[in-house]
Amino acid sequence: MDGIVSSKSLTAEWFAMQAKFEQKLNEFLDEKIHTDGEVAQVSSEVILAGGKRIRPILLLKSFEMAGGKDLDEVFPLAIAFELIHTATLVHDDIYDNAKTRRGVPTLHEKFGLAKAMIAGDWMFVQGFGLGGKFDEKVVEIVSQSCARIASAEYKQLDHILDTTTRPEDYLEIVQGKTAGPFSAACDVAAYLAKIPSKQREELARFGLELGMAFQLVDDLLDIRGDERMGKPRGADVYEGKMTLPLIHAITILHGQDQDELIEIIKKFDDSKFDRLIALLEQANSINYSEILIKNHAERALDCLAAFSDTDSKKLLGEIVEYAIDRII
Amino acid sequence: MDGIVSSKSLTAEWFAMQAKFEQKLNEFLDEKIHTDGEVAQVSSEVILAGGKRIRPILLLKSFEMAGGKDLDEVFPLAIAFELIHTATLVHDDIYDNAKTRRGVPTLHEKFGLAKAMIAGDWMFVQGFGLGGKFDEKVVEIVSQSCARIASAEYKQLDHILDTTTRPEDYLEIVQGKTAGPFSAACDVAAYLAKIPSKQREELARFGLELGMAFQLVDDLLDIRGDERMGKPRGADVYEGKMTLPLIHAITILHGQDQDELIEIIKKFDDSKFDRLIALLEQANSINYSEILIKNHAERALDCLAAFSDTDSKKLLGEIVEYAIDRII
Repeated sequence: MDGIVSSKSLTAEWFAMQAKFEQKLNEFLDEKIHTDGEVAQVSSEVILAGGKRIRPILLLKSFEMAGGKDLDEVFPLAIAFELIHTATLVHDDIYDNAKTRRGVPTLHEKFGLAKAMIAGDWMFVQGFGLGGKFDEKVVEIVSQSCARIASAEYKQLDHILDTTTRPEDYLEIVQGKTAGPFSAACDVAAYLAKIPSKQREELARFGLELGMAFQLVDDLLDIRGDERMGKPRGADVYEGKMTLPLIHAITILHGQDQDELIEIIKKFDDSKFDRLIALLEQANSINYSEILIKNHAERALDCLAAFSDTDSKKLLGEIVEYAIDRII
Repeated sequence: MDGIVSSKSLTAEWFAMQAKFEQKLNEFLDEKIHTDGEVAQVSSEVILAGGKRIRPILLLKSFEMAGGKDLDEVFPLAIAFELIHTATLVHDDIYDNAKTRRGVPTLHEKFGLAKAMIAGDWMFVQGFGLGGKFDEKVVEIVSQSCARIASAEYKQLDHILDTTTRPEDYLEIVQGKTAGPFSAACDVAAYLAKIPSKQREELARFGLELGMAFQLVDDLLDIRGDERMGKPRGADVYEGKMTLPLIHAITILHGQDQDELIEIIKKFDDSKFDRLIALLEQANSINYSEILIKNHAERALDCLAAFSDTDSKKLLGEIVEYAIDRII
């Protein structure tokens, strides 16, 4: 997911904000390594191994666009979002048995299951420690979004290799897993900047639509293959994850073609990749995903219309474009 | 650890508070099952499978003793402590590969690794969601205590089968893992009841000393064997955990006896149990642990002297006595 923003098209403003965030994050981790020792050190290895920092930058730039004055006020919350996100990645990697993350060995590969799991717990604790310093509304938005990630992960597990999965199941999973946290980042930023509720709703919806587009692109690239994803093509299919192109194709195809597709999904290996693509193309499923992505991206951009033109708004618009850039 | 309070000696006041807590906990979980679905349902299975609720009752009774008026104000925090505690148990059970917890199959045995891990994460999230509604000081106490649990677990892992482990390493682990959370429960209660800082310190120290006694009893019973522990004798020795009696005996014994003890610890199985006990008795290590436990218990009781006599104070004193009851 983290490779999604193609670096060739990022502007200087993005990199400036990323650098500022990186500095704050490093300061925070240095202090924690001092107080918490090894668990903080191990956690830092994955936190600092890369990652585009989409969630924190969304939060920071949304806060700016919404007229928030003191960016230092919200940096702790931006760090909280990145820590909680990384905690979920570390735990996901354990049960997905992933070997690498952000180009380096996963924590459980390097330090074993126990230390990886506790490092994830520690990141949750630190994230909530930072988030808990804000008022009750912020805590509610963050904890609800995290609870929905857990619910969505359960739903995703329940649909592994389930070829009767419906598009609405998939969209609900994506909404909980990715679009929800994106939306929460924008929503807390709007809340803390104290903008009128109509504008706050637009900003939260911007995050939601961007998040949907973001995950749809990710899932499409898994099938189309993209060296910048940092994982082999078809990894989701291997794991039995029912992504939209597969669900769509099962619905559209019938008879022998449908049977063959289901068989390929249930017993997938790379030798079946070309035939899988042929069937998805026959059902026009890749095109269908692309259209949906563009719709979500357009709706995200529409939400920005509620705000006057600023550099921050321009950057948020650019994030949408970059997110869908690679599928065009 | 949860079997430590021997039910034969509990008073009606304890059971009354436990029943009230159980009701609030059930209400909370019912609501969450409604909103979060399966992950809340799975989590409830272990949360409601038993457990003496030591941490929440410590918090509630400390709040009462400190003159706190509205118990309803602190129930959410009491629930938070129990959820966070259960989250750590669920994750510990995964990497300890435990088969049962509170008399029922562990979550990972019943639902698989992924769902168990996410259920633990969900409990953390809910715990922090509840705790985050309190002010910054409460959040700081809770999150620092959780971070110290993680650090202590790392230290414990680093000392598995390390026969050079020192008593101070062991005491540091116990302080972070058990005494810290006990102390945090008492400390937040004192803070929210707004008592003078001198009394607050005494209450926090009460929790710390009780927690130390509590874990020392637990570790001693692992070696002495106790059917109420709900696990086979010597389980800690099997797992390579260096508890105080072992550390003490390695220090006291020398020559062949020391070599033999180290050999038994490194390649432990139940056939070596009697010889292990003989060596521990030769070194007077069980007696040493018992003395330490009594010292911590006495210091805990001393801390209560700072408070006037009330039913709550009486109950807190009884908890100390019950905690050490089984080793006498």
